[in-house]
Amino acid sequence: MKNLRYKATLAYEGTGYEGFQVQPHKVTIQGELERVLEKLYRSPVRVHCSGRTDAGVHARGQVIHFDAPDARIPRPQLHHALNCLLPADIRVHRLVRAPDDFHARFSATGKEYRYHTWRGSVLPPFLRNLRNHYYGPLDVPAMQQAAMALKGEHDFAAFAVNPGYDIGSTVRIISRFDVLQKGHELEFRVAGNGFLYKMVRSLAGCVLKIGRGEIGPESIPGLIAAGARHNEIPTAPAKGLVLWRVDY
Amino acid sequence: MKNLRYKATLAYEGTGYEGFQVQPHKVTIQGELERVLEKLYRSPVRVHCSGRTDAGVHARGQVIHFDAPDARIPRPQLHHALNCLLPADIRVHRLVRAPDDFHARFSATGKEYRYHTWRGSVLPPFLRNLRNHYYGPLDVPAMQQAAMALKGEHDFAAFAVNPGYDIGSTVRIISRFDVLQKGHELEFRVAGNGFLYKMVRSLAGCVLKIGRGEIGPESIPGLIAAGARHNEIPTAPAKGLVLWRVDY
Repeated sequence: MKNLRYKATLAYEGTGYEGFQVQPHKVTIQGELERVLEKLYRSPVRVHCSGRTDAGVHARGQVIHFDAPDARIPRPQLHHALNCLLPADIRVHRLVRAPDDFHARFSATGKEYRYHTWRGSVLPPFLRNLRNHYYGPLDVPAMQQAAMALKGEHDFAAFAVNPGYDIGSTVRIISRFDVLQKGHELEFRVAGNGFLYKMVRSLAGCVLKIGRGEIGPESIPGLIAAGARHNEIPTAPAKGLVLWRVDY
Repeated sequence: MKNLRYKATLAYEGTGYEGFQVQPHKVTIQGELERVLEKLYRSPVRVHCSGRTDAGVHARGQVIHFDAPDARIPRPQLHHALNCLLPADIRVHRLVRAPDDFHARFSATGKEYRYHTWRGSVLPPFLRNLRNHYYGPLDVPAMQQAAMALKGEHDFAAFAVNPGYDIGSTVRIISRFDVLQKGHELEFRVAGNGFLYKMVRSLAGCVLKIGRGEIGPESIPGLIAAGARHNEIPTAPAKGLVLWRVDY
């Protein structure tokens, strides 16, 4: 049988969705994609993503793959039809054919997330669903020192939330963790070989807590070494997070 | 009686509103503002704006004034309370006391609007309510030539929609009309001493039509001279328009 695997790069605003993954009676990104693909092919099509995003989390470069049931629809028309039928808050930026051993999740070699905090006193209405909002002093050098300590290969169990199923190793490599301040925008750029459940929001929550001076950056090695979730690590709000890029 | 006039500068995303002006059984910007002020003062407060915006039109710098019924609430607390009680898509960026002869509409000496068109093939989800979308060739120099011809003092009756009541003179001065192209973003910056009903969207619609080559930029003087609405002048979609600034 002819391979009809497609790889698609998606952007979405997660505000109106209960996350990526299909759930009964809930509106999800995967649910919308599968609904539209089933409409186009008149048979069910399963969508696989690089990694689920939570309710309210956005994507600029989420990657999915799926197998078309037949070759009836040429690629450019399929790309166009998807964007016509999907809601405007989910867009397919790129649609290409992929080898049949390509897997959106298992073929991924790395990912970049960005976490955005608005530091002005008033959150602009156009950014209300796209930024965490914090108005108050933040110690940027301390946050940068914490980010530096988080980089590298560590067991990040303390910075994950148990998803309720066995996930194997909780060791991951963070290759980049930049803390950038520009005007009222505070941005974390975090790249690595993989991320645990709620790991980026936990990293962001911890670094923001260090920025507020509630704990010091020197506490990072101890938090990592504890190897288990600690109440000093809060989960930052979903709306500040964007899955920026997936590498293959 | 002591003057308790306030001047407020607002930003709002117009997507969820039936325009600025109060209308029975419709959700409007003015309606939200007056609802919140009445809640705070326990008596009705009338809000006056620099000029109504239509359904779906946004503002970065709309200006309003209102008279507080009493001095119970200090200014900083009032500012804070407004942003707490208003929905997140309406924000008060600035709240100051104003002299009692200040009028948001009649004291205004000029305004700037910006009109945004996204020219990429796919409209990013985060901009879906904030950009007009046009994918296709546009002759930017022709649009710039048209913008130049629209500048100055003219009778803009042809570029207005009759609001259904007498508006007096339809002569206005356009002091600035820049056509800027940067990446996929096409921006019109239009400033003047005042604008007629749907005038900016008519100017944008006409200039975009010239960009598509459907009429030439040399037709502008004739369209102005006609002095009445012509079917060559379309109204560009509301969602691309932002009331950027009001001058006093």
